Amino acid sequence: MLQAQTLKGFRDFLPTEARKRQYVINILRQVFESFGFEPLETPALEYEEVLLGKYGEEGDKLMYRFTDNGDRRVALRYDQTVPLARVVAQYQNELPMPFKRYQIQNVWRAENTQKGRFREFLQCDADIVGSISPLSDAEIITVAIKALEKLGFEGFKIIVNDRANFAGIEPLAVLIIDKLKKIGRERVLEELKKRGLPTKSFDQILDKTLTEKLEEITEIVGDPKVVFDSTLARGLDYYTGLIFEIEIEGYTAGSIGGGGRYDKLIGMFAGKDIPAVGFAFGFDRLIEAMTELNLFPQDLGGTKVLVTIFSPELEKNSLEISSRIRSNNINCEIYLDPNAKLDKQLKYADQKQIPYAIIIGPEETESGKVVLKNLNERTQETLALDEVIQKLT
Amino acid sequence: MLQAQTLKGFRDFLPTEARKRQYVINILRQVFESFGFEPLETPALEYEEVLLGKYGEEGDKLMYRFTDNGDRRVALRYDQTVPLARVVAQYQNELPMPFKRYQIQNVWRAENTQKGRFREFLQCDADIVGSISPLSDAEIITVAIKALEKLGFEGFKIIVNDRANFAGIEPLAVLIIDKLKKIGRERVLEELKKRGLPTKSFDQILDKTLTEKLEEITEIVGDPKVVFDSTLARGLDYYTGLIFEIEIEGYTAGSIGGGGRYDKLIGMFAGKDIPAVGFAFGFDRLIEAMTELNLFPQDLGGTKVLVTIFSPELEKNSLEISSRIRSNNINCEIYLDPNAKLDKQLKYADQKQIPYAIIIGPEETESGKVVLKNLNERTQETLALDEVIQKLT
Repeated sequence: MLQAQTLKGFRDFLPTEARKRQYVINILRQVFESFGFEPLETPALEYEEVLLGKYGEEGDKLMYRFTDNGDRRVALRYDQTVPLARVVAQYQNELPMPFKRYQIQNVWRAENTQKGRFREFLQCDADIVGSISPLSDAEIITVAIKALEKLGFEGFKIIVNDRANFAGIEPLAVLIIDKLKKIGRERVLEELKKRGLPTKSFDQILDKTLTEKLEEITEIVGDPKVVFDSTLARGLDYYTGLIFEIEIEGYTAGSIGGGGRYDKLIGMFAGKDIPAVGFAFGFDRLIEAMTELNLFPQDLGGTKVLVTIFSPELEKNSLEISSRIRSNNINCEIYLDPNAKLDKQLKYADQKQIPYAIIIGPEETESGKVVLKNLNERTQETLALDEVIQKLT
Repeated sequence: MLQAQTLKGFRDFLPTEARKRQYVINILRQVFESFGFEPLETPALEYEEVLLGKYGEEGDKLMYRFTDNGDRRVALRYDQTVPLARVVAQYQNELPMPFKRYQIQNVWRAENTQKGRFREFLQCDADIVGSISPLSDAEIITVAIKALEKLGFEGFKIIVNDRANFAGIEPLAVLIIDKLKKIGRERVLEELKKRGLPTKSFDQILDKTLTEKLEEITEIVGDPKVVFDSTLARGLDYYTGLIFEIEIEGYTAGSIGGGGRYDKLIGMFAGKDIPAVGFAFGFDRLIEAMTELNLFPQDLGGTKVLVTIFSPELEKNSLEISSRIRSNNINCEIYLDPNAKLDKQLKYADQKQIPYAIIIGPEETESGKVVLKNLNERTQETLALDEVIQKLT
């Protein structure tokens, strides 16, 4: 017999998890669209040369690459920024500028799964391509704030900084100082010394204040959740201006998202600099934080009521009732075996966490009413169908 | 400079196309959920042995297979039925039975693209696992009908047949007779003779009537769109009972979906027979048919109104107005360059097919009103913001 198993780092999402994901995706889409961001989808597979060398040595190593049946070297999508750069070059005469797009698709990375990382995970990006205005930087931060609010987050901060604040400071020193929150002041100084780096770079960074641009951006956003932190570095590699990270109070597993301005990257296929600013949510962390903070609503969709079948002779009544309930936009299923005992049918409802069940026995058929059981409260009442529909709407 | 190109058979979906796709997916989800089908997601990559040999020789050839960084043989999802079979075995103690799931994910096949086929395409499946009741067969047909109705299709048929009608008839003869509609009676008889097959098998099949099961199923569905056709064969390989195909009037490129009962397949990982019935829409054909028949609504979401910026000094007013409109659940964007000429800003709205634009000049700022331009009708009026919001809601 074949073994039924998934690859390490890859996940099935059974209905309860899949619904949570869909709930978050729907809200993100809605918020992105409310600001004029448009959906974009790119292929899972690209020519290897499109992706290779764009993510550093580590990226090339973690990328899923292979030779296809036509002897082409291909690679699985590793992020959504390089494909965006390709799209911007490939359709430059069709796309309105600035091009504001969001993209919610899986990416694949052969990560070390022992670190709690996944090899297939969803990315949620929103970017503005083709605008250098601080209005764009501000909009990206505002979209992130609105999305978080709409998802139900209350205590959170947007930590901001400007790459310009690191001008003239050794990159390695920056990376060490970036760890201030994690490891504390003492260990930052220690590490700087150990690497032979001047500790004055630490004071230099601590002394930095909002750049003029950053002041302009935060003023446009006009939200006290935006907080300046001169030690925020965010990897450093391709950002050219604003950088920011999202911090959720009560969720300490790490930042659930961030972004910034990167004016030198998107033009790589177009052969010229194209300015861009954007951000991404870490979808898995978003789901984790929402679960921990209890932000998912009780009702994530799913069946509202199960219509049971009292006996094979009464199957028709149950079919008709279920179809009438459904035509009132209530998710309604009928139990799919007319010979099953009522107990078994109700157990199925329990298992699927369906909150209501309807029973239509010979008496009810006669009287034109139905028995509505509230399965959570373990109560029941005999009602006309109209009353049931009103109650479940 | 790098070449910006996609692989043959792989597609980017720019906003207009991506929105159409999202519109269809949302309706399908809604209809599936209304019958109690639950969402399932499975990984893009599976162990090769999970998929290999399940789709015949042709399938193995078209499958994207490779060796990953950990020297595991892996393969990209080829359909959604084999992964469903794996899931049913892997989580048998967690899943309610019958397990009703829908799955809307991409699959990958190295098809010959000259035949207009794609190598990455979306599949939309709904299946019921674990029920032998004709109620299940009927429900699958009903879900398909409701989905098509909700998408706006009016003239369509569900062609049904029962695999039992082919008992004792040479499989090759069945495949030839299946082509009756495409090639006509004469050529069917010709082909049968050419292959040395008795032409009486043709008459035998033509003479078949509804099986008892089929009668029961169609009676439960109770819809005149369900039509019996004894020549419908549908590949034949794994179906064990009901088979059906969807035919859209006015769309001749082929069937946009179909399905049937397959009681011997889903148990392949569980090591026992598990009954199942289901269907799938061909997503690309669905989109094509809807486009040809003009079934997409004019308004597929997107920005409703662009707030222009009259001059850098008035940027703040525009920001405030746009944020107030947006807080009324109207998709609203602000033009992201305060120095751009008004003409350029309006051209951007045109390009993005945004139907309205707002102008707030010094006069309007004074009077507390705004100019609302209807960009399709090329009219404009001066209104209070509340009136604008009412108009756009």
